[in-house]
Amino acid sequence: MTTQYAPINSQEYPRFSGIKTFMRLPHVKTEEDIDFAVIGVPFDTGGSFGIGTRFGPEAVRSMSSLIRPYNPGLEIDIFKYCSGVDYGDLAVNPGYIEESYHLIEKQLEPILNNHVIPVLIGGDHSVSLPHLRAMAKRYGKISLVHFDSHGDTWDSYYGKKYTHGTMFRRAVEEGVVDPSTSIQIGMRGSLYGPEDIKDAEDLGYQVITSQMLKGMTPNELGEAIKNRTENHPIFVTFDVDFLDPAFAPGTGTPEIGGFSTFEAQQFVRTLKGLNIKGFDVVEVLPDRDPTRVTSLAAANMCFEFISLIAYNMREKQQQDEQSLQKLK
Amino acid sequence: MTTQYAPINSQEYPRFSGIKTFMRLPHVKTEEDIDFAVIGVPFDTGGSFGIGTRFGPEAVRSMSSLIRPYNPGLEIDIFKYCSGVDYGDLAVNPGYIEESYHLIEKQLEPILNNHVIPVLIGGDHSVSLPHLRAMAKRYGKISLVHFDSHGDTWDSYYGKKYTHGTMFRRAVEEGVVDPSTSIQIGMRGSLYGPEDIKDAEDLGYQVITSQMLKGMTPNELGEAIKNRTENHPIFVTFDVDFLDPAFAPGTGTPEIGGFSTFEAQQFVRTLKGLNIKGFDVVEVLPDRDPTRVTSLAAANMCFEFISLIAYNMREKQQQDEQSLQKLK
Amino acid sequence: MTTQYAPINSQEYPRFSGIKTFMRLPHVKTEEDIDFAVIGVPFDTGGSFGIGTRFGPEAVRSMSSLIRPYNPGLEIDIFKYCSGVDYGDLAVNPGYIEESYHLIEKQLEPILNNHVIPVLIGGDHSVSLPHLRAMAKRYGKISLVHFDSHGDTWDSYYGKKYTHGTMFRRAVEEGVVDPSTSIQIGMRGSLYGPEDIKDAEDLGYQVITSQMLKGMTPNELGEAIKNRTENHPIFVTFDVDFLDPAFAPGTGTPEIGGFSTFEAQQFVRTLKGLNIKGFDVVEVLPDRDPTRVTSLAAANMCFEFISLIAYNMREKQQQDEQSLQKLK
Amino acid sequence: MTTQYAPINSQEYPRFSGIKTFMRLPHVKTEEDIDFAVIGVPFDTGGSFGIGTRFGPEAVRSMSSLIRPYNPGLEIDIFKYCSGVDYGDLAVNPGYIEESYHLIEKQLEPILNNHVIPVLIGGDHSVSLPHLRAMAKRYGKISLVHFDSHGDTWDSYYGKKYTHGTMFRRAVEEGVVDPSTSIQIGMRGSLYGPEDIKDAEDLGYQVITSQMLKGMTPNELGEAIKNRTENHPIFVTFDVDFLDPAFAPGTGTPEIGGFSTFEAQQFVRTLKGLNIKGFDVVEVLPDRDPTRVTSLAAANMCFEFISLIAYNMREKQQQDEQSLQKLK
Amino acid sequence: MTTQYAPINSQEYPRFSGIKTFMRLPHVKTEEDIDFAVIGVPFDTGGSFGIGTRFGPEAVRSMSSLIRPYNPGLEIDIFKYCSGVDYGDLAVNPGYIEESYHLIEKQLEPILNNHVIPVLIGGDHSVSLPHLRAMAKRYGKISLVHFDSHGDTWDSYYGKKYTHGTMFRRAVEEGVVDPSTSIQIGMRGSLYGPEDIKDAEDLGYQVITSQMLKGMTPNELGEAIKNRTENHPIFVTFDVDFLDPAFAPGTGTPEIGGFSTFEAQQFVRTLKGLNIKGFDVVEVLPDRDPTRVTSLAAANMCFEFISLIAYNMREKQQQDEQSLQKLK
Amino acid sequence: MTTQYAPINSQEYPRFSGIKTFMRLPHVKTEEDIDFAVIGVPFDTGGSFGIGTRFGPEAVRSMSSLIRPYNPGLEIDIFKYCSGVDYGDLAVNPGYIEESYHLIEKQLEPILNNHVIPVLIGGDHSVSLPHLRAMAKRYGKISLVHFDSHGDTWDSYYGKKYTHGTMFRRAVEEGVVDPSTSIQIGMRGSLYGPEDIKDAEDLGYQVITSQMLKGMTPNELGEAIKNRTENHPIFVTFDVDFLDPAFAPGTGTPEIGGFSTFEAQQFVRTLKGLNIKGFDVVEVLPDRDPTRVTSLAAANMCFEFISLIAYNMREKQQQDEQSLQKLK
Repeated sequence: MTTQYAPINSQEYPRFSGIKTFMRLPHVKTEEDIDFAVIGVPFDTGGSFGIGTRFGPEAVRSMSSLIRPYNPGLEIDIFKYCSGVDYGDLAVNPGYIEESYHLIEKQLEPILNNHVIPVLIGGDHSVSLPHLRAMAKRYGKISLVHFDSHGDTWDSYYGKKYTHGTMFRRAVEEGVVDPSTSIQIGMRGSLYGPEDIKDAEDLGYQVITSQMLKGMTPNELGEAIKNRTENHPIFVTFDVDFLDPAFAPGTGTPEIGGFSTFEAQQFVRTLKGLNIKGFDVVEVLPDRDPTRVTSLAAANMCFEFISLIAYNMREKQQQDEQSLQKLK
Repeated sequence: MTTQYAPINSQEYPRFSGIKTFMRLPHVKTEEDIDFAVIGVPFDTGGSFGIGTRFGPEAVRSMSSLIRPYNPGLEIDIFKYCSGVDYGDLAVNPGYIEESYHLIEKQLEPILNNHVIPVLIGGDHSVSLPHLRAMAKRYGKISLVHFDSHGDTWDSYYGKKYTHGTMFRRAVEEGVVDPSTSIQIGMRGSLYGPEDIKDAEDLGYQVITSQMLKGMTPNELGEAIKNRTENHPIFVTFDVDFLDPAFAPGTGTPEIGGFSTFEAQQFVRTLKGLNIKGFDVVEVLPDRDPTRVTSLAAANMCFEFISLIAYNMREKQQQDEQSLQKLK
Repeated sequence: MTTQYAPINSQEYPRFSGIKTFMRLPHVKTEEDIDFAVIGVPFDTGGSFGIGTRFGPEAVRSMSSLIRPYNPGLEIDIFKYCSGVDYGDLAVNPGYIEESYHLIEKQLEPILNNHVIPVLIGGDHSVSLPHLRAMAKRYGKISLVHFDSHGDTWDSYYGKKYTHGTMFRRAVEEGVVDPSTSIQIGMRGSLYGPEDIKDAEDLGYQVITSQMLKGMTPNELGEAIKNRTENHPIFVTFDVDFLDPAFAPGTGTPEIGGFSTFEAQQFVRTLKGLNIKGFDVVEVLPDRDPTRVTSLAAANMCFEFISLIAYNMREKQQQDEQSLQKLK
Repeated sequence: MTTQYAPINSQEYPRFSGIKTFMRLPHVKTEEDIDFAVIGVPFDTGGSFGIGTRFGPEAVRSMSSLIRPYNPGLEIDIFKYCSGVDYGDLAVNPGYIEESYHLIEKQLEPILNNHVIPVLIGGDHSVSLPHLRAMAKRYGKISLVHFDSHGDTWDSYYGKKYTHGTMFRRAVEEGVVDPSTSIQIGMRGSLYGPEDIKDAEDLGYQVITSQMLKGMTPNELGEAIKNRTENHPIFVTFDVDFLDPAFAPGTGTPEIGGFSTFEAQQFVRTLKGLNIKGFDVVEVLPDRDPTRVTSLAAANMCFEFISLIAYNMREKQQQDEQSLQKLK
Repeated sequence: MTTQYAPINSQEYPRFSGIKTFMRLPHVKTEEDIDFAVIGVPFDTGGSFGIGTRFGPEAVRSMSSLIRPYNPGLEIDIFKYCSGVDYGDLAVNPGYIEESYHLIEKQLEPILNNHVIPVLIGGDHSVSLPHLRAMAKRYGKISLVHFDSHGDTWDSYYGKKYTHGTMFRRAVEEGVVDPSTSIQIGMRGSLYGPEDIKDAEDLGYQVITSQMLKGMTPNELGEAIKNRTENHPIFVTFDVDFLDPAFAPGTGTPEIGGFSTFEAQQFVRTLKGLNIKGFDVVEVLPDRDPTRVTSLAAANMCFEFISLIAYNMREKQQQDEQSLQKLK
Repeated sequence: MTTQYAPINSQEYPRFSGIKTFMRLPHVKTEEDIDFAVIGVPFDTGGSFGIGTRFGPEAVRSMSSLIRPYNPGLEIDIFKYCSGVDYGDLAVNPGYIEESYHLIEKQLEPILNNHVIPVLIGGDHSVSLPHLRAMAKRYGKISLVHFDSHGDTWDSYYGKKYTHGTMFRRAVEEGVVDPSTSIQIGMRGSLYGPEDIKDAEDLGYQVITSQMLKGMTPNELGEAIKNRTENHPIFVTFDVDFLDPAFAPGTGTPEIGGFSTFEAQQFVRTLKGLNIKGFDVVEVLPDRDPTRVTSLAAANMCFEFISLIAYNMREKQQQDEQSLQKLK
C-alpha cells in the first residue's frame, strides 16, 4: 500500500523549521487520497471564563513538530498504513455562534462524505456541537466518548442555549447523539449543585467521575467504553481540562485534582479497535500556557488519535489478507 | 464642599492590600452623592484578533492601586472637588453582542440620569457603541474624541455589522454621534486599502493620523479638538493601541510606530475645560501583558480622566464663587 | 434556614466579571449573620527566600471566581448550610513583623468573639503566629494541623526570632499551641541537619514526613489526625509548598518530591467532623506563578475549608433535628 | 496587470485563523509568477549570547497575520503591483555553520536566477553571509545597507571565522560586498575597544553610529544612503537589535539606547526608489519575547520591505506607461 | 599603570558562561589594589508595593555579561585606567530594617577607608540611607544626585520612619546629606498631595521634575548638577523607575511618562569630571521583568558609573603627567 | 575528618544573596582537597529542537541556593564526609562541536587525575560524549547509567555524526562505553520507527522503557542497575526530559507521559553504594522554564548525586574504621 501524504523528512528539514502544519504534514485542502485530515476550528465565542482558544490550532501545530511517526505504545508506524493532510482551519465567524455552527457543519460535509476521519482541533468546546451535527448527518446518531472535567450539559448560560457549557445537552435534544450508547469520563470540580451530574445521567449519559476513574485501571475503563458504545459510530471529544492543571494549565476553566498525561495516554489507547468516525481536542488556550505543556499534550492526544486510525487500518488490512488467504 | 466617597487611607491599609477596586475607591453601586463612577464593561465578543479583554477591568483595577489622588500635571487634588465610586462591572452576555449592547445601554441609564460621569473600562472597543447610545439618549448627538490606531469605521467584518472594527460607522448611521463635531486621532498601521481613512472622512469625521500627530505639539492638538467639538457634549474613547506596543503590548491588535505614555498624558490633559460627559478606555488584554505596563497605562489614563472631571468642577466652583462675589 | 450572604448569581454576572472577592461573596466587613469570613493577610516580611506573598490574597481571590458552591467530594451545598463574606484584608505594617503581629491579632478578635470561623489567606507563613495567638486567646491552647514541606520550627533565622521559619516553635514556647495534640504533615526536602525533624518532635509535635505519607492512604492520615487532635479546638494551616512545584510553582521556597492537588483534596477532606475553629492557606507568590495554578490550588483549598464548615453545620443541624425528633 | 499570488481574504478567514504563512500568503515553493518570496532561514548556530533565533521565522509569520496589504506610509497597495509567496524555510544543518552556508547559498540560486527579490527572515545574523554570497554570484559585488547596533566586523570569535559577529568582515574579504558603496547604521553599545568602529571604517564601510543618527532626520539618512549606494545592487540587512530593547526585547544581544519602531519605519521608507535586490531581517529570539513585540516589529519591517518592492514596481510601471505614451 | 583586576577574556570564555559576577570581574572580597568595587545589597524590606528586589543584584550581574569594557559614549577604555572587583553581596537581615542598616553601614567602612568607590546594586531604595551614612562618616556631608520618579522624602509610611519612601528626609535630618548642594531629578506621577514636591524643596533639595526635564537638554541638566554640587563629595543614586515602564517594567512602583535609556545615558554622562565618591542603582525587581530589559538597563547604568570613574582617573593621570611635564 | 570546602553560612548570608555558585559552595578552580567538583558545561550546539541550554548552569546554580546540606532521604550530612567546590564553567566554542569536545575532554583531565568526582551541568546532551571520553581515558570502559526519555543512539542527524541525539552510539563505537554493562532508563515518546529502541539493544544496551518502568518499584530498578553495572566504573547521566513536562517544562525536546520528581528521587537514591566516577545532568533550557521548576529539579538531582558521593565516603570510612578495629 502506498501512502499519498506523510510528514516531510526530518533529516533534511529539521523539525523546528518550515511552515507549521500538524506533524509537518502537507497542507492540502483535499478530501481525496487521505484517511484522515487534521483540521483547525479556531472558534472561541462560546467560552465562559478564560478565552483565546482561537489560537489553539496554531499552538498545537507548533508543538506537534516534535512528534515522530511511530507510536511505541500502540506499536504502529502510522504512515505505513494511512495517509493524511493538514487541511488548514475551517472558516468561522467570531462573535457569532449560530452562524459559525452552520459554517463548521457545512465545511465538514465533503470531508465526511469522502470517508475521511477528521481530527479536529478547537477552539472552545462549543464547536463539538457542529462537529456532532455533521457526524450525525453522515452516520446517524453518534455515540459520544467524552473526556472532560465538565459534563457540559447545562441547559443554558446567561439565558443562552449555545455556549461551551451546554452543547452535550443540545446534542441529545437535537438527536445527534445517542446518550444511551455514550459515556462521559472525568467529571470533577465544584458544581452549581448536586443535580449537575444527575442531570447528565437523566439525559441518558453514563458518567464516570474523576473520583470513580481514580479507582479504575485503564483496562477497566476500556471495557466500560467498549460495553457502552458497542459497534455504533463513535465521536471522541477530549477537553484538555480532563488533565490536571499541572499538566495542562493553558485552558479556560481549569479544575484541580485531574489526570496526568501518562494516564490520559493509557486511557485513550484503550479505544483501539472501536468504530471511531471522528475526534476533537478542545480548549487549548495558548495565552495561558507559557510553558507550552498544554499544547504539547494536545498535540500528543491528536497523535494518539491518528495512531488509533492507523491501528484500525492495519487490523482491517490484516483481516482482509487473512480472508484472502482463506479464499486461496 | 464635602466629598462622600474617596479612596481609603494608604497610611493604614498599604496600597497592595484590600479588595481591588479602582484607586481603592469604595465599591458601592450607587448613583447618589457621586460625580463620577468607574465602571467595568468586561465584554470582548467583538474582538477580531487577540481576545480576552473581559479581564481588562480586573487588571486595570489591580494596577490602579498604585495611583495617588493628586495629579501634578493638572495641579488638581481630585477628592477635594469631587466624589466617586467603583460601581463594579456591568452585566454582559458573553458570546452575544446585540443582547450585551442592550444590557450595557440599559444599565448606564440610571447613572447618566443622575448627572454622573461614567469612566468605563472595557472590554473590547465594540462596547463604545452602547456607551454612545446611552450618552445620546441622555444628551443628544455626541461629539466623539477618539484616540486609537484604528478608525473602526469598517462597514462589516465577516459579513457582520457589530464588531470592534465597525462601531464608529454604526454610531454615525444610528445618529448617536455627530461626525461633524467629532475627531479621530492616531490612526496608523497597515490598512485593507487607501479608502480606509477616506471612508472615515466621508462619514464626516476629522481624522488626524499618527503621521500627522507626530508633527504636532500637544497644544496644537488641543486646539484642534476644541475647535472641532466646541460646546457639544463629548465622549472620549481611548483605545490603548493608540500607544506604541512598547508601552502597551497587552492589546489585541497592536500597531508599531505609536505614542509613548508621556505623549498620551500631554494629549489628554489638553482636554481640560471641555464639556465631557463620559469616558472609556478599552482593549486592555491582560493575558498578553506579562509586564503589566498596559494595565498601568490604562489605569493612569482613567486617572487623567477623573482629574479632568475634578478640574472642571474646580473651574465651575471658582466661577460660581466669583459670580457670588460679584452679586455681593 | 436562610443564608444571609452567598455568592452572586453567575447566570446574571458571568464569573469573569465584577469586583474580585473570594468566590464572589459580598465584601462586607461584618461579624454578624455569618458563619465564616474569608480574610486576606497580605504580609510577607517574614519570607526567607522568594518574596511577594503580599499579593497572595489578590491572586487567590481572582482564581476563586472559577469555584462553584457545591462540593461533590463532600456532597455539600455550602450556602444551604452557612453564610459567609469576604471580609477584605487585615491592615498590616510591611517591613515590621512585631507591629504587624499585634495588628493582625487585634483585628481577629471581633471575628472570633462572634463565633465566626476565619479562613485566612496569606501572606507568608509567619502570619500563622498571630492567627494562633488570637485563636488561643479565644479558645485556649490550640491543636495545630499543619500541612507543609517545612516544619518551621527553627529557633531563629539570621539571629531573629520572628520569620516564616520559626513560628511553630514560638507558638509552643508562647503556649498558644499544644504540641501534644498537634501534627505536622508533609515535611521533606533538604535540611540544615538531621536534628531539624527531631527538634520538632522534641518540641512535642507528631511529624509525618512526605516519605511516610507517600505510603499512607488518606483514611490512614485522617485517622492519625483524629487520634492526635481528639476534640480539642483545631487550627488548620496549609502551606502551598506542601504541594509539588509542578502543582504549585508560585511559592517562595518550593521543594520537589511533593503532593498533587488530588492527594491534597483527599487529605483535607478527611478533616470532616473535626472541631476546627480556623484555617489559613499561605505562601502563594503570584509573581512566580505565571500559569496561575498555585493560586487556583490555594483557592480550591479554601473552598475545601469552607466545605468542611458547611459539612459540620449540616451534621450539627441533622443532630439537632434528630434530638428534636426524639423529644417529640 | 494581474497578480498571481496574494494574501487570503480576511473577510472569509479571520486573521487569527489558518496555517501561519507570512501575511497569509500562499505557501508555494515556486520561483515563477512572483516578484518576491518571503523565506525563512531558521539557523542560529552563529549566536554568541542568547540563542534560539531558529524559531524566528515561525514567530514573525505568526505576528504577520495582523498586517493588511495597504501601506499608508508609502501610499502603496502592494498586491496591485506585485505577486509574492511564502516560500517556506530553507534547509539548514543546525550545529554546522559552513555546511549550512553552502545549503543556504545553493537554495537561493533558483530564486535569484528568476529575478525574484528574496525577503529573508533569520535566524541569527550569521546567515547574511550566504545571503550575500548568493546575491554577489547573481549580481556582482553588493552594496550593503546595514541597520544594526553592532558592526559585526570582528575578525573572529573564540578563534573561529564564522559567527554572527564576523560576517561583514568576511563579506569584504571574500569580495561579495563592496564596502566603498556600503553603509552601516546604528552602531552603539559597549565595545571591546575603540578600534571596533575604526576597523569597520578601515575595511571601507561608512559607519553612522546611533549617536550620530540621533542627530539626523530620516531624510538626511536617506540622502546619505542614496549617495553611498548610488545605482549599485543593494542588499538591506536589518538586525532587530537596531531597535531599543523596549521595542525589541526578544533578541540575543540587546543594547540599550536604541531606536523606536516609528523611527525605524521612517528610516526604512527612505530606501524607496533604490536598486534593492534583496532583504533580510534577523535576530528575532521568540523565547525572550513574551510580549511578542519583537516579532511584530520584525513582521512590520518585512512589510516595509515588500512595500518598497511594490513601490518600485509601480514607479517602473508608470515610467513604462509614460514611455509608451510618448511613443504614441 | 597596571590594572590588577579586570574582566575575564571573552575570546576564551564566551560571555554566557561562568560564574555570574558583574561584567565577569573576579569575585574577590578585597579592598586592596582596586579603584572601584561592585557590591550587591540584596535588601528589600523597605518596599511599599511590588517586592523582591533582593534578587536585583543577581539579575543585574546576569545581564552585565553582555557588557564590553570600552564605552564609546565617553571614549574610555575602562580597565586601562582602573581596577575593580565584584565584591559580592553585603550581609543583610531580611525583615529587619534597622539591623540591616547597621550591617550595611559597617560593611562599607573598610571599602571607603581604602579610597575605593563603591558601585552598589540594590535592593530597594531604602538601602541608600546606610550607603549615605557610611559615605558621610568617611567624607562628611554628602551632595546627593538623585535620579528617580519619586522624591522619597515622605515623613513616614504606616507610621514608620524607615521605608523606601522616606530615606531622603531621614538623610537630611541625620545630617548625612547636605540638601543645599543636592538635586533630585525626574519626579513625576500621581502624588498624595501638592505638598509632596514642596516638602522636598522645603527640606532644601533642588527638584527638577520630569515635566521640567522633558524641556531640558542633557547639557543643561549637566550644568544644573555641576552648579548645585560644586566640588563637594557626591553620591549618585539611580532608581530604575526614573526610566519609563516601557524601558524598565521590572520595578516595584512604576510610573508612566518617564525617560528612555538613551536619555538616561545622556544625562548620566554629563556627570563626568564631578567629585563622585559612590553610586547606587536600586529597585530592580526581576520577578516583574520577564523581558529582562530592566536588569539590562541597570547593568548599563553601572557600566556608565564605572566609565565615569575611569574617565576621572584618566583626567587625573593626564593632569599628573602634564604637571610632571612642566616640572621637567 | 575536616572538610576543606563547604557552603557558606546561611545564618549570616541569606540564601538569596551572594554570587551564585552551586549550593553556595566556594568558586575555586582547584583539584586539590576536594572530593567532588560541580562544573558547568554551557554548550548547546548539539540541540535539535529547542535551544539555549548554554544558560543551564547559571539557572541550576541560581535555584540551588535553596538546597540545604543534609539529605534526609539518604540520611547523610554531606559536608561531614566530603569537600567540594564550584569549579566554574569549562571553556567551550559555541557553534563548533568537535572543537568543543576536545576542549571539554582536556579540561576534565586534571580533575579526574586527582580522583575528583565531577558533577557536570549541561548544556545539551551532546556534552556527555566528551565527558565519557575523559572518563574512559582515566578509568577504562565506562558503564553508563542513563536516565532519559530518548535513547540518543541514532546514527546521525541531518547527515552529521555529532548531535545531542547520537552520542551514545558514538560512545559505543569509540569504545568509551561498555554497553554490555550499561543501562538506559525511561525511553518513551514517539519514534522515527520501531527500530529506534531495538537499535540501542543491538548496540548492546539494556533498555528499560518508561512503560516498563511504570510497572517497577524503585528497588526493582535499583536491582536491575546493580546487576547490570556490577563493580565497573559508572557514569550517571540524567537528562531532565526523563521527567514529565509538568515537572520539567524547560527543556528542548519534552515528551509527555513521564516521571515525577518524587519518582526520580526514589530511582536515583537506589544508586547508593555503586562505583560511580562521575555524573552529569543535562538539557535544562531556562528560556522555556518561566516557573523555574526545571532548574529546581536539576539542582536537586545534583544534590542527590553529591549525597551519593558523601554516602559512599561514609561507607568507606566506616569500613576503614571497622578494619582498623579488627586489627587492634
